[in-house]
Amino acid sequence: MNRVTAHTGSKYPIIQAPMGWIARSRLASAVCEAGGMGIIETSSGEIDNCKKEIQMMSELTDKPFGVNLPLLFLKDDSMVNFCVESGVRFVTTSAGDPTKYVGTLKDAGITVYHAVPSLEGAIKAANAGVDGLVVEGTEGGGFKSPIEVGLLVLIQSIKQNLDLPIIAAGGIADGAGMAAVFAAGAEGIQMGTRFVSSQESPVHDNFKNKIINSGIDGTYILNKKSKPVIRALKTDLTKDIDEKGEMDMTALMNIKDLYFGGDMEAAPALSGQSSGLIDEIKPVQQIIDEIVKEFNSICDSMSELKI
Amino acid sequence: MNRVTAHTGSKYPIIQAPMGWIARSRLASAVCEAGGMGIIETSSGEIDNCKKEIQMMSELTDKPFGVNLPLLFLKDDSMVNFCVESGVRFVTTSAGDPTKYVGTLKDAGITVYHAVPSLEGAIKAANAGVDGLVVEGTEGGGFKSPIEVGLLVLIQSIKQNLDLPIIAAGGIADGAGMAAVFAAGAEGIQMGTRFVSSQESPVHDNFKNKIINSGIDGTYILNKKSKPVIRALKTDLTKDIDEKGEMDMTALMNIKDLYFGGDMEAAPALSGQSSGLIDEIKPVQQIIDEIVKEFNSICDSMSELKI
Repeated sequence: MNRVTAHTGSKYPIIQAPMGWIARSRLASAVCEAGGMGIIETSSGEIDNCKKEIQMMSELTDKPFGVNLPLLFLKDDSMVNFCVESGVRFVTTSAGDPTKYVGTLKDAGITVYHAVPSLEGAIKAANAGVDGLVVEGTEGGGFKSPIEVGLLVLIQSIKQNLDLPIIAAGGIADGAGMAAVFAAGAEGIQMGTRFVSSQESPVHDNFKNKIINSGIDGTYILNKKSKPVIRALKTDLTKDIDEKGEMDMTALMNIKDLYFGGDMEAAPALSGQSSGLIDEIKPVQQIIDEIVKEFNSICDSMSELKI
Repeated sequence: MNRVTAHTGSKYPIIQAPMGWIARSRLASAVCEAGGMGIIETSSGEIDNCKKEIQMMSELTDKPFGVNLPLLFLKDDSMVNFCVESGVRFVTTSAGDPTKYVGTLKDAGITVYHAVPSLEGAIKAANAGVDGLVVEGTEGGGFKSPIEVGLLVLIQSIKQNLDLPIIAAGGIADGAGMAAVFAAGAEGIQMGTRFVSSQESPVHDNFKNKIINSGIDGTYILNKKSKPVIRALKTDLTKDIDEKGEMDMTALMNIKDLYFGGDMEAAPALSGQSSGLIDEIKPVQQIIDEIVKEFNSICDSMSELKI
């Protein structure tokens, strides 16, 4: 057990990222059952549906799970209160200042990790009193910081300045990536794209197949001069956005047509650079088992690499 | 000994990057004496000076050293022939197709590593017959690929596809970074910014101090829509280039005024994101000793991290 598994209560420090609409009970419970930490999203803004998904988790698994609260998108205290009342034990906060809710959550006995893309964000979160950090390198998919810092550099910088446990996110898809970030000082990993393209992921096969067929240079960082900055797969739509240099906010409106209808041009297909490391749709259990096996094998052999 | 040290002949698989004008005999010999692999640059285009620097190396150290050949910048066969005639044993090629010279170099018994920013580049280099790869993540400084892929993702992708030894470059400044890339499959590291800001580096203290005072978000990727794409420290000049979105080629003409005159606005101050991990000007020997110590310590403790 390390500090992350002590906090999550999961067998392995492998966390499933809270992708809007995708990180629902089917995927999250599969991750929990496989020994990881499933997280229910609320960034879709479908509050009633998300509450139902949280309630469904206890029917699908007796393992601990978490909820993500994207702070800037919360219209009121409703989701925070719901987490407290529902007995949620682990929350990741993101997209905003954790100060407002960290007290309420911690008073309820909830462990709070805040997602940060920078050293400054990490220091602010530490000062706000969070229990740990999800450290997000620019390699990851979805909503990003306009400050593009590589995951390894980011972990090391934060480790030099803070002693909070770190869950590393961005560009990780296997046990080698996990071993690398652990060598740099992380104590957990969070994966989005790897789980989006898992068998239990609810998204259309067109999206999963696009991920497994993409290379490591198969994504764009889009809308850098405005907000939100996103990383998405290269498609006709995102090529157009990249060339324009900016994105109409309505571009994301039809993302459900992409996720569930399989129309890859309906919206930017959010994905990290790890799409280039993924070449097969696998069950969640197999994904996690293989990561653990590879990770442990690398840990065992590292002493032979001494110079 | 691993495959990289077998190739370099150096004590440690720690390679000094071939920064134009900076990677001359004073710095390179200090790296060699400290157990690393010093590399003499030829990208400055000052061919006669570079030849003299190569000749001076054997007076300054009896350890092996290398030479970098930036293929696109070579006006003729002169430097290639000089390397062969001078008994150079290790060459890194970069910026171009290694096919043209790899045969000549290898026929002379020279080991050739080619620097690549992509899987496609790595496969091409392998097909050309190089002995190994310098794998350059987007985190690094200086001349970059417009395809911005994080180092960890890049190493893993290349490892999945090729069995060539990998020297990892980009964002590495210490033993934790080295351990991370070794966990991912690299067998060596190359550092530029860390050695630029070393005591033996010939650059002006203004540049060294700017590096040690910069954060991990202290650089820009510039000129993405044109060539050359570079990563440089944030200064008034580079802020202006970033806002314009393009760079006049003359921007680099006065780089010696920055390097040796200390005028930080004379040209873009080439640097990697690792500037944010560096906070002290140190002698090369100390830099390498500390990296080796930290690296070995992490290798020894990795088995305790098993899950």
